[in-house]
Amino acid sequence: MAEKFAVGVDLGGTKILAGVVNISNGQLISAAKKKTRVVEEGGELIKRIASCIAEAIEIAGVEPKKLVGIGVGAAGMVDRERGVLLAAANIGGTNDLPMADPLSAQFGLPVRLGNDVEVATLGELNYGAGRDCDNFVCMFIGTGIGSGIVNNGKIYRGGNGTAGEVGHIVVMPDGLPCGCGGYGCLETYASRTAIAKTVMYDINRGMDTVLRDKIDPAKGILRSKAIAQALDMGDASTLRAITQAAQFLGVGLATVINFYNPRRIILGGGLVEAVPQFFDLAELEARRRALRIPSRKTEIVRAELGDYAGTIGAALLCKN
Amino acid sequence: MAEKFAVGVDLGGTKILAGVVNISNGQLISAAKKKTRVVEEGGELIKRIASCIAEAIEIAGVEPKKLVGIGVGAAGMVDRERGVLLAAANIGGTNDLPMADPLSAQFGLPVRLGNDVEVATLGELNYGAGRDCDNFVCMFIGTGIGSGIVNNGKIYRGGNGTAGEVGHIVVMPDGLPCGCGGYGCLETYASRTAIAKTVMYDINRGMDTVLRDKIDPAKGILRSKAIAQALDMGDASTLRAITQAAQFLGVGLATVINFYNPRRIILGGGLVEAVPQFFDLAELEARRRALRIPSRKTEIVRAELGDYAGTIGAALLCKN
Repeated sequence: MAEKFAVGVDLGGTKILAGVVNISNGQLISAAKKKTRVVEEGGELIKRIASCIAEAIEIAGVEPKKLVGIGVGAAGMVDRERGVLLAAANIGGTNDLPMADPLSAQFGLPVRLGNDVEVATLGELNYGAGRDCDNFVCMFIGTGIGSGIVNNGKIYRGGNGTAGEVGHIVVMPDGLPCGCGGYGCLETYASRTAIAKTVMYDINRGMDTVLRDKIDPAKGILRSKAIAQALDMGDASTLRAITQAAQFLGVGLATVINFYNPRRIILGGGLVEAVPQFFDLAELEARRRALRIPSRKTEIVRAELGDYAGTIGAALLCKN
Repeated sequence: MAEKFAVGVDLGGTKILAGVVNISNGQLISAAKKKTRVVEEGGELIKRIASCIAEAIEIAGVEPKKLVGIGVGAAGMVDRERGVLLAAANIGGTNDLPMADPLSAQFGLPVRLGNDVEVATLGELNYGAGRDCDNFVCMFIGTGIGSGIVNNGKIYRGGNGTAGEVGHIVVMPDGLPCGCGGYGCLETYASRTAIAKTVMYDINRGMDTVLRDKIDPAKGILRSKAIAQALDMGDASTLRAITQAAQFLGVGLATVINFYNPRRIILGGGLVEAVPQFFDLAELEARRRALRIPSRKTEIVRAELGDYAGTIGAALLCKN
């Protein structure tokens, strides 16, 4: 089989990560990175993505005729048919931005648009922790929590295309309000944002924590590596926050295991990669709570593609 | 197409309901009923089922050669391959009871064994509220809460065959202990058993409720019709108990809608049939809590096959 290449673009709230990917084997050939400005006009965002793509193609040195297309995985709601970014709260509140048409015109290649969790799941399915499994749920814990459901080796999109919103399973019926309009949702308790809020609470109450200087008090942004370091230093506030979040994640996992009984659950995102205790505590809680048989049999593993899961997965949108 | 008939047996905790079913159109031709003794030796249970089957065949008056098999749907865990009832807490604690072989020997017909929720889902899929839909979740609320998941027109069994245990999604992380060994499970808050416990609490605290004489204080058994009548009489304890249970059911529904996004949710069981307020309050809570798009689009409907869903569904096990 001749080798095929595609450009993958991971379009997130903080950065654009483009790369040329050998979609025959999942290998990343080149990578280019730009920041996503928080407040940015739509046309400017497209220009920035295009220059990132051009850079990745240049670095890769792959013959243009071997490029079969461009895949974009965006942190937001997308219209796959029309190639339009419908809503992206974390990318400057972008709404109804046509993405496929302008990029396709500029590069003379077909452009496929997907969402970030979907493409990261595609990546794990093809070349990561799901490559030998046709039934799994891939959960990504970041500023929010999302998941991709794979059934029979294909992404399951649900009755109306919205399946996988695991961040909005209810873990606390009378719980905290969530950005979705509901309350008590998993991501309000177990995301990195939730952990940052718990730590901010302690700081505001005058507790002594090494994270005091590591957190952006206005935005509540806390990096996964700072959390890992604070844990290593024995910081009580951090241990408390991580334990609470991991336990809630375990409650969510138990619900997924009992109701959906996937063969495997793959956990990904910076927090899972940087903080082993978070993964371990979540797994423990899930197994303590789930029904006996699936508790024993469900595999719970880490995602494998790391930082480039989104880029590789986005390129795979061009595979079919 | 020549008409085909099969015997369906609904084997529950309180009764055996056998019938001859035209499996070409789902029509129930005959029905026979016997009580399931609570403490009963396994061989005695098989005899009782056999006599119920014989009665149903006799009443039906269908030529024996037109009967293609016997399907049994049992309230418990089953081994489908070997036709053994593995564990049935509600049928006298029956364990490892071979069921297919003795019945097959007696009637000279192949016998298929399934579990009660699975066969009721099969019934709704073929001839009930799911007949025009290939993606739905069927939830049955009774002494416990179970569900069948239909994807692509087929029952989805999960990675290890235990999918659909919706009664054990966690709705209260630090909640009441559940029979499964976990705590805070949906069925601890929203089943008929949960409602009976809430009412018992009021009775024990000396509250004035018309259900005082309708409840078996030793076993906490309360009939759906008694609940409906008490509501009609404006009984406050009953209204409180039903509202609380329905709200928790709505929380569970929101979780299913957000994570799995089925096109349709079908609610069944005696409580749903007898108490319209229970269905309405649960639907309201689910739509209040679920994400906007699936909240609007997911259909929430009542099961259609009623008392004979299990019998008809069990007969359908013989369809393939």
